[in-house]
Amino acid sequence: MKGLSVIPVEGLPDVGPGDVLADLIATRAFLRDGDVVVVTQKVVSKVEGRLVEVDPGDPLAHKPLVERESVRVLRRRGDLVISETSHGFVCANAGIDLSNVERGWAALLPVDPDRSAHRIRDGLRARAGVEVGVVVSDTFGRAWRRGVTDVAIGCAGVAAIVDLRGSTDAYGRELQVTEVALADEIAAAADLVMGKSSGVPVAVVRGLEPGWLRDGSIRRDVVRPPSEDLFR
Amino acid sequence: MKGLSVIPVEGLPDVGPGDVLADLIATRAFLRDGDVVVVTQKVVSKVEGRLVEVDPGDPLAHKPLVERESVRVLRRRGDLVISETSHGFVCANAGIDLSNVERGWAALLPVDPDRSAHRIRDGLRARAGVEVGVVVSDTFGRAWRRGVTDVAIGCAGVAAIVDLRGSTDAYGRELQVTEVALADEIAAAADLVMGKSSGVPVAVVRGLEPGWLRDGSIRRDVVRPPSEDLFR
Repeated sequence: MKGLSVIPVEGLPDVGPGDVLADLIATRAFLRDGDVVVVTQKVVSKVEGRLVEVDPGDPLAHKPLVERESVRVLRRRGDLVISETSHGFVCANAGIDLSNVERGWAALLPVDPDRSAHRIRDGLRARAGVEVGVVVSDTFGRAWRRGVTDVAIGCAGVAAIVDLRGSTDAYGRELQVTEVALADEIAAAADLVMGKSSGVPVAVVRGLEPGWLRDGSIRRDVVRPPSEDLFR
Repeated sequence: MKGLSVIPVEGLPDVGPGDVLADLIATRAFLRDGDVVVVTQKVVSKVEGRLVEVDPGDPLAHKPLVERESVRVLRRRGDLVISETSHGFVCANAGIDLSNVERGWAALLPVDPDRSAHRIRDGLRARAGVEVGVVVSDTFGRAWRRGVTDVAIGCAGVAAIVDLRGSTDAYGRELQVTEVALADEIAAAADLVMGKSSGVPVAVVRGLEPGWLRDGSIRRDVVRPPSEDLFR
């Protein structure tokens, strides 16, 4: 197998409601069939108008929004709320934060991030004539481990989970647990070139297995229903 | 910022107790200063002799080992045990599985994966004259999300967490939660070229920020102590 490239897409302007991300990306990235384009949640929320005005002098002004955007609170500690969003994501502050948004505004998660990814994918096909996968990424904390990583909150044209059950290992024995969260690993790889403060909200991952570029959905394939979840 | 390359290291032989991974890697990878070499737990456990004989006819033969290697069981469901290991990792089956090990054997986690990473790093410096970072990776499930991802269980010469607290975002505002689990994202990126069944246990990640190649430790920096953990 050949290697993989992770390429930041630089020079994107600040975006706002109604901007078409596919157009802005297509003119700055030299995309090829089989690439996966990773777009951070923040710019998706901005073009989709998921911004809410908050008191710029109050660092906790977004907290009522957190309650509103949560369907279930799992844990509270001080100002921190770990809750489940309407999408089924379990994360801090319902995915709302104030960084990389203009002062006085908070960005909510996209209403349907899989659909957001589809829209960008369709736009890139129309604009650049390429068949690519798209991942919408966000930065989540984890249970049991310090630090945050980027994960996929939406995807289109790329598998969310690669199911290797039934494949054999290097010894010819059937593999046991091998449902790999592909889209999450792609989001993590992309974050390595984005940085948190450098303002690069889009990256391209090139060289993935062609068979992985197929229908996928974070909501359907990755969000673990409470009934099968041991930690909710 | 430039892009990143993720390169599989192919052609490694099957390894056993006493083999020197640094030697095997140095002759197959063209390493440069600043690279990070990701080595999967399974080959590290093998060279360190962390193999235990089990009844080849019993698919649950490793279960007593799981109990022995666990310091605390968090959840049980059927045959599945989610437990905390002596290292502080919370994972399924105490990190023990039977895939990619010869029939009749189970591989335990390395005793001290940070030290394992240091040993490989020192070996690569001695053998190839390069200053690289090393990550020992393993495949863990997550709370709330389906699918497994590769994470770092040990590291050397590369930061486990990149702390961007105090940095400013693209709007000049101080960032809030920005302790990025760098080594975990590197492990995830490497997994994209390894595959689970292709038998490529080593990959090189090239092009990371030079400042990230510094002292790091998964045990010290990433393992969340139970006292600050909301989900244990």
